[in-house]
Amino acid sequence: MNFASDNTMGASAPVLDAILRANNGAEPAYGADSGMKRVETQFAKLFERDVKVFLVATGTAANALCIAAAVPPWGICVSHREAHIVEDECGAPEFFTQGAKLVGLPGVMAKLDAAVVDHYVSGLPNASKQMPPKAVSLSQATECGTIYQLEEIAAISAICRKHGMSLHMDGARFANAMVSLGCSPAEMTWKQGVDILSFGATKNGCLSAEAIVVFDGKLAETLDYRRKRAGQILSKGRLLSAQFEGYFADDHWLANARHANAAARKLADGLKKLESVRIAWPVEANEVFPILPLAMESRLKAAGAQFHRWAKTSLAPQEKMTGDETLVRLVTSFATQGTDIDQFLQAAAG
Amino acid sequence: MNFASDNTMGASAPVLDAILRANNGAEPAYGADSGMKRVETQFAKLFERDVKVFLVATGTAANALCIAAAVPPWGICVSHREAHIVEDECGAPEFFTQGAKLVGLPGVMAKLDAAVVDHYVSGLPNASKQMPPKAVSLSQATECGTIYQLEEIAAISAICRKHGMSLHMDGARFANAMVSLGCSPAEMTWKQGVDILSFGATKNGCLSAEAIVVFDGKLAETLDYRRKRAGQILSKGRLLSAQFEGYFADDHWLANARHANAAARKLADGLKKLESVRIAWPVEANEVFPILPLAMESRLKAAGAQFHRWAKTSLAPQEKMTGDETLVRLVTSFATQGTDIDQFLQAAAG
Amino acid sequence: MNFASDNTMGASAPVLDAILRANNGAEPAYGADSGMKRVETQFAKLFERDVKVFLVATGTAANALCIAAAVPPWGICVSHREAHIVEDECGAPEFFTQGAKLVGLPGVMAKLDAAVVDHYVSGLPNASKQMPPKAVSLSQATECGTIYQLEEIAAISAICRKHGMSLHMDGARFANAMVSLGCSPAEMTWKQGVDILSFGATKNGCLSAEAIVVFDGKLAETLDYRRKRAGQILSKGRLLSAQFEGYFADDHWLANARHANAAARKLADGLKKLESVRIAWPVEANEVFPILPLAMESRLKAAGAQFHRWAKTSLAPQEKMTGDETLVRLVTSFATQGTDIDQFLQAAAG
Amino acid sequence: MNFASDNTMGASAPVLDAILRANNGAEPAYGADSGMKRVETQFAKLFERDVKVFLVATGTAANALCIAAAVPPWGICVSHREAHIVEDECGAPEFFTQGAKLVGLPGVMAKLDAAVVDHYVSGLPNASKQMPPKAVSLSQATECGTIYQLEEIAAISAICRKHGMSLHMDGARFANAMVSLGCSPAEMTWKQGVDILSFGATKNGCLSAEAIVVFDGKLAETLDYRRKRAGQILSKGRLLSAQFEGYFADDHWLANARHANAAARKLADGLKKLESVRIAWPVEANEVFPILPLAMESRLKAAGAQFHRWAKTSLAPQEKMTGDETLVRLVTSFATQGTDIDQFLQAAAG
Repeated sequence: MNFASDNTMGASAPVLDAILRANNGAEPAYGADSGMKRVETQFAKLFERDVKVFLVATGTAANALCIAAAVPPWGICVSHREAHIVEDECGAPEFFTQGAKLVGLPGVMAKLDAAVVDHYVSGLPNASKQMPPKAVSLSQATECGTIYQLEEIAAISAICRKHGMSLHMDGARFANAMVSLGCSPAEMTWKQGVDILSFGATKNGCLSAEAIVVFDGKLAETLDYRRKRAGQILSKGRLLSAQFEGYFADDHWLANARHANAAARKLADGLKKLESVRIAWPVEANEVFPILPLAMESRLKAAGAQFHRWAKTSLAPQEKMTGDETLVRLVTSFATQGTDIDQFLQAAAG
Repeated sequence: MNFASDNTMGASAPVLDAILRANNGAEPAYGADSGMKRVETQFAKLFERDVKVFLVATGTAANALCIAAAVPPWGICVSHREAHIVEDECGAPEFFTQGAKLVGLPGVMAKLDAAVVDHYVSGLPNASKQMPPKAVSLSQATECGTIYQLEEIAAISAICRKHGMSLHMDGARFANAMVSLGCSPAEMTWKQGVDILSFGATKNGCLSAEAIVVFDGKLAETLDYRRKRAGQILSKGRLLSAQFEGYFADDHWLANARHANAAARKLADGLKKLESVRIAWPVEANEVFPILPLAMESRLKAAGAQFHRWAKTSLAPQEKMTGDETLVRLVTSFATQGTDIDQFLQAAAG
Repeated sequence: MNFASDNTMGASAPVLDAILRANNGAEPAYGADSGMKRVETQFAKLFERDVKVFLVATGTAANALCIAAAVPPWGICVSHREAHIVEDECGAPEFFTQGAKLVGLPGVMAKLDAAVVDHYVSGLPNASKQMPPKAVSLSQATECGTIYQLEEIAAISAICRKHGMSLHMDGARFANAMVSLGCSPAEMTWKQGVDILSFGATKNGCLSAEAIVVFDGKLAETLDYRRKRAGQILSKGRLLSAQFEGYFADDHWLANARHANAAARKLADGLKKLESVRIAWPVEANEVFPILPLAMESRLKAAGAQFHRWAKTSLAPQEKMTGDETLVRLVTSFATQGTDIDQFLQAAAG
Repeated sequence: MNFASDNTMGASAPVLDAILRANNGAEPAYGADSGMKRVETQFAKLFERDVKVFLVATGTAANALCIAAAVPPWGICVSHREAHIVEDECGAPEFFTQGAKLVGLPGVMAKLDAAVVDHYVSGLPNASKQMPPKAVSLSQATECGTIYQLEEIAAISAICRKHGMSLHMDGARFANAMVSLGCSPAEMTWKQGVDILSFGATKNGCLSAEAIVVFDGKLAETLDYRRKRAGQILSKGRLLSAQFEGYFADDHWLANARHANAAARKLADGLKKLESVRIAWPVEANEVFPILPLAMESRLKAAGAQFHRWAKTSLAPQEKMTGDETLVRLVTSFATQGTDIDQFLQAAAG
């Protein structure tokens, strides 16, 4: 019953098999391996256009490199105030950009609102004493497990265009969001104006594999140097390309994401039946955020369930938790089993 | 016949098996996995003392983090002028240190000489207009495939102590050097005064696994933050710890290194028998640097041999290459097969 | 009628005279001039203890160097959200710290509240995924022209001690605040726990002269290098030291600050008599923030008065401005003349 | 008898007068003062074209900002190995560029040779593992007091064009070099292909006034932000613009430079008459580098002469100093008096 995160499980079998297969024989180093060429082709096909792809080992590196490509050291990157880049990366974006400022704006369900972004950016002074806004970064899915609708992405992108800013998408849970929307990779990204994407694969079945996918060619110009300089070009690059080969083959990545999302829905449906539980935000991807009685939390822990408490920052204003309640996060993954959910719900029911 | 590098092959079987084994079940993320605890114990045992261990994905990251831990942005790091950190990491040490200066000194066979270091450092002005020397970095084995003897390391360490500098060892080929010297990990490092070590495993049988091993506790204080900030903490940390488990088990790493070194010796011995070939530097680890007639180089390439030409910077002054000759590098690895060597020598003989 | 800023006037006469006097004869360069030695003695006397003093040309450099001395690249510096370091220095603190995060907290009248700081800092996670809090920076006087009382500084300092943070004071208007409190330099700084101070002199009668005054010796260790590296060590250092000599002689700096503060009070007293004007915040230093009818603003501009509109961020919650009103800032200085004030008030009265 | 540096004297009278004149009245802050507008016009006239001008307080800041405008964090800036930017700025270029590499090449008389630059740059690998060359920086006059002829500058510029590099000139002694060549500002800079210039004025009669002059408009795009962020925009900007007004009026700057150069020649001529003295490098600007007997050095010091010993790095190979000799630097300035020279020569003669 491990619902602590979608990074507590290893790789899914097809990904692991791909690593095994790719291990044989000699291959050029530093990303010049034959698998990488196939992966580049695959990304172009998936996104229905030419893209530049840079593989890295971690989501933090992917995000920080994307932002550094879009924001100069004296620029501002706008995101939701609960965004992973703001809260959980120990200043990696500041390090990679060499001093840019991350401005976190409020928004219900951890989502940026285009009008709020516009209002903030429009209010900035235009002088060399102040840092100019250069990019917006949005998380799809968000830190509350919610999803930007396509028109919401387009609306934010329009604000970016208006102010000369780039649009970055932190897609640590890209697949979960995409299958939830039922759209294509292209529709969720560049067709709505996304310029650069952190395409996450680790959480959804890989071991350590993230891709920077660049739609605005200008943003790709410095990335080879930035990535090398950051120690993110693996000498045995096949480790990264192989994972993506296994991930994409036979739409395995979509199956993984659908499995995780379905598990989250099942978990949420079960919890909703309990009178003492409220679900804080819509369950749109692979995360469920129930507000539980403390007694239920204890019971679940005692039964061996693993999960974390969560910040209340983005609760709706009308949501009034009592002192006897707690907000927790339950994350499902490609590896979540029906029996885990059943056991969890049983323990919750008490 | 791939002698291009020791990173052109994948993982050795025991390392790959360890990845497979570690893939099962839930594990805490971000380096809190059970394997990591075992790996820490293993490192302490290997080095016969308490050490701090930080795993990262690449040698570039390991080196750059080590140097950043030891050298402030306004400090100088001294190394051989052909060192990997100077020539081949696209300024990663400058990025991670945020502007420190790498000063490359000359030295035969790519080795730093303690007296040369002392002379350089002693000649530096002592004023805030000039950057103060803060560390020496030496590569073991060197970029010429040669090895520092223990007393040479100790001599450099003494110079470091004299001037208040830290001593870093870039051990990308740590195992090859160590089995060549026939000493223990402790003897090759902290017992000679090494303060911080990039312990390479990727080239010697892993896929992507490097460890920063810290002997001077003070240098470890900032590394957790620096590593996270650099996007070098893998969420599924088991990928890194598992490789080390497979690497160390049953002295597998030593066997790999001995195999590679023996292959290099065999290759060198065969080449030495050819009248038209000279070996530029002593073959002390897993690299051979022959000076070949251009015709022989063509013949070898035609036969399918893969290798790179190499820089003549560290040739002995008396070595006079003719216009018909070229200097090349041949790298052997745990995966080099006897038949590769035989074929290569046959093609060389013509 | 120039109330736009206290940096629109040149130097006061004694400061200018001191520059003239110091211009003669040969002096060692780079801060080794005889005037600098006298200035160091003067600072020690003023602060009643040993201090380290580093002169620089701008307040931005002083602030950024102070914060860089106290906060590592991965650390957080807490200040009021309207602080000059957050809003008006184009990321200088981020540049000098090489990526630290400035967190701006709310607070009425642009003042940080110790309890708010404590609550924020106490709520931070303690993990390498998150940046640790390392310093608090407070502005004395504040961006609203208000003043921290000694016990308020002490309360914030206590929170700093509790959490292992350093306390920086941005004293761009140090003298105005101090004469307003009627205390000594020591009482307003280290006796309340301030660790490092930007001691501003430019606004109060100099042309370009700011001092970093360090009370916590540990914070001084890197400043010589940081300052040189930032291009802030003037070769003809006498320009800076001379200004401070003229500034301090015969308590000239106190006279200047008292003059400016008195002018602000006179201006405020006159404005208060006008029914249609409200003063937004207490006038405690040399700035007045009236809420004016738009018609009055136009009248004043037409009469030649110079001043800027101001942000409403720190208005008290109960303050309800109408659409016909505007909030403006009026700054007085050592050079403000009574006739300027009279004319301004006359024009305001209409 | 102060020949230690051209920064040991204060400002010349016309510059000081200009500061006094500019001190009166209100002026907009942060470089928007009326004097700055006149200075911009003056620079355009002097250089016979549109230029972008950014005033800063120190030569270190000017150089570091110029290089940062031209070289990305992962780029190489080539200069002579004795260049001020390499040896005497505590890593300011590395700080402002955020990690670029300064590569110092050898060259007689501290001058870069176009062929040497070409050979070095042509030999660099072209891969993301290695930092790409992005700029050349040359010092006019050099650290040996020598001067690049116009065709030498043009030759280096041609190499820059060939390799896509920018050309920076460190003109800390711009005026001395220019009057020595007898050419115009335009001829010594953009007409030979210089892209960006540190135009020094401090050493030649100002107190603290340096200008970044940009000929390649693209290099100017980021400088407003970079300068603010570096704390190099003076709030009372008139201090900087006034110095330039006094400096340029009535060709005062040229007179100062001619005076200093003539003094250096007179000093050199006198020294050449002494049998035991050799002049190490041609005296082309305001510096003389004699090789003296140690006894003469002692005699001069005893007589009160001030000067520094100098590095022998750039001595001609055939120059053989004995153990009884020393190389020293004598710097003349606008303020050097004939009697100083006479006394010095008398003491030297013994």
